[in-house]
Amino acid sequence: MSLIPLPESLVPFLKEYLPSQRTDRPFVTLTWAQSLDSRIAAAPGLQTKISHAETKTMTHYLRANHDSILVGIGTVLADDPKLNCRYGNSHIRPVVVDPHGKWDYSKSTLHKVCAEGKGLAPFILVGAQVSPSSENKTNLSAQGGQFITIDFSLDRSLNWQRILHVLHQKDIASVMIEGGADVINSLLKSDLVDSVIVTVGPVFLGKDGVEVSPSGGAELVQVKWWTGTKDVVMAARLQKGTS
Amino acid sequence: MSLIPLPESLVPFLKEYLPSQRTDRPFVTLTWAQSLDSRIAAAPGLQTKISHAETKTMTHYLRANHDSILVGIGTVLADDPKLNCRYGNSHIRPVVVDPHGKWDYSKSTLHKVCAEGKGLAPFILVGAQVSPSSENKTNLSAQGGQFITIDFSLDRSLNWQRILHVLHQKDIASVMIEGGADVINSLLKSDLVDSVIVTVGPVFLGKDGVEVSPSGGAELVQVKWWTGTKDVVMAARLQKGTS
Repeated sequence: MSLIPLPESLVPFLKEYLPSQRTDRPFVTLTWAQSLDSRIAAAPGLQTKISHAETKTMTHYLRANHDSILVGIGTVLADDPKLNCRYGNSHIRPVVVDPHGKWDYSKSTLHKVCAEGKGLAPFILVGAQVSPSSENKTNLSAQGGQFITIDFSLDRSLNWQRILHVLHQKDIASVMIEGGADVINSLLKSDLVDSVIVTVGPVFLGKDGVEVSPSGGAELVQVKWWTGTKDVVMAARLQKGTS
Repeated sequence: MSLIPLPESLVPFLKEYLPSQRTDRPFVTLTWAQSLDSRIAAAPGLQTKISHAETKTMTHYLRANHDSILVGIGTVLADDPKLNCRYGNSHIRPVVVDPHGKWDYSKSTLHKVCAEGKGLAPFILVGAQVSPSSENKTNLSAQGGQFITIDFSLDRSLNWQRILHVLHQKDIASVMIEGGADVINSLLKSDLVDSVIVTVGPVFLGKDGVEVSPSGGAELVQVKWWTGTKDVVMAARLQKGTS
């Protein structure tokens, strides 16, 4: 899919929310597109178009401003995404969090995208007990990707700290986290998010949809809204200490 | 609570969504304020501040443009609302849908508001099996309100038709329906809504909140957004035949 031009007004709107240098860990942007009833998909595993072409372009503009893009295994298995950047000539490093080693990388669209030179190969973060197949290991390393072992714990906030620590060690200065819902809901309860950028599409996907709603809620500050042809975009920061 | 002045830009924004004359039934505006995660309250029965003062004023401006305001019994019992209009010198007729006769009108804030001449007395729609207390009957009729009996059925869409038919017979040309969640979710699945006006406040109220999300979803058309200091407002029409 080719992108439409980026609406010019998005550039100043997003400016103050783009990554800035941190010394302790990568800058974290949490971003997703949701319906009015805060669903990111109409049903589990069902890829659902919510956002207008212009906010789709915005996503790629944001990717162009980050070193890496991180998604959970649920999103990868549901959407088989390309996870590349189609805005400008930028490259972005995909990071896939796959604690139980469920992803067969060699069969993925991302593998094909990388084979065609249209994106960087992923860093796949697996749990200590996972042994990737030799095919996946060979294919991934031939493309410049890596399996990285992480000692995942039951405490999710600790896992996020470990993930960001590993990415920091790999010289990744910024990470754009795009979902899915479990990833978003747990990060909204953390102190690890620097910017939150949410596209809201004017539709109700209904009760069976996959929902963003952090347990106990979350407060936002420095809120700004952008109005598009069809969607709105909210940019904000997470109020610290609401977790 | 006194209102702040209405932001001027809301007047042209709302214009095309305000009631127009219908001959078959009252014009229906469905309106509510929700969090980003589509909660209208942080917990059942808990009145939750979501919207900024300027969108609160908008609600009263909308009330000034309608003949009546309708809410479900859940909202009345949870919020004990005033249901009056504090914008301009307008009066609005409260309509309370109370199929099982749960509301003790004489003890309500609305009763006090009416006794002080600050609002019209309600039309209380009760099921055929309900016998209002003589105290409530006397107090209500002294203030110019009425108990109206409706033959509520198990089919909610039929109930809405009957409710609108009764209001039409009472010369009510427009009704603003403000909730709660059950009322909103069922009307979003009907063909009985003319305008939808939703305020979205930039907060997550969390999984335990009272949720707007119609079963199976709903499509919107003629969508427009207004951006306020803190909130956005969406005005739209419901796509017919999505129910």
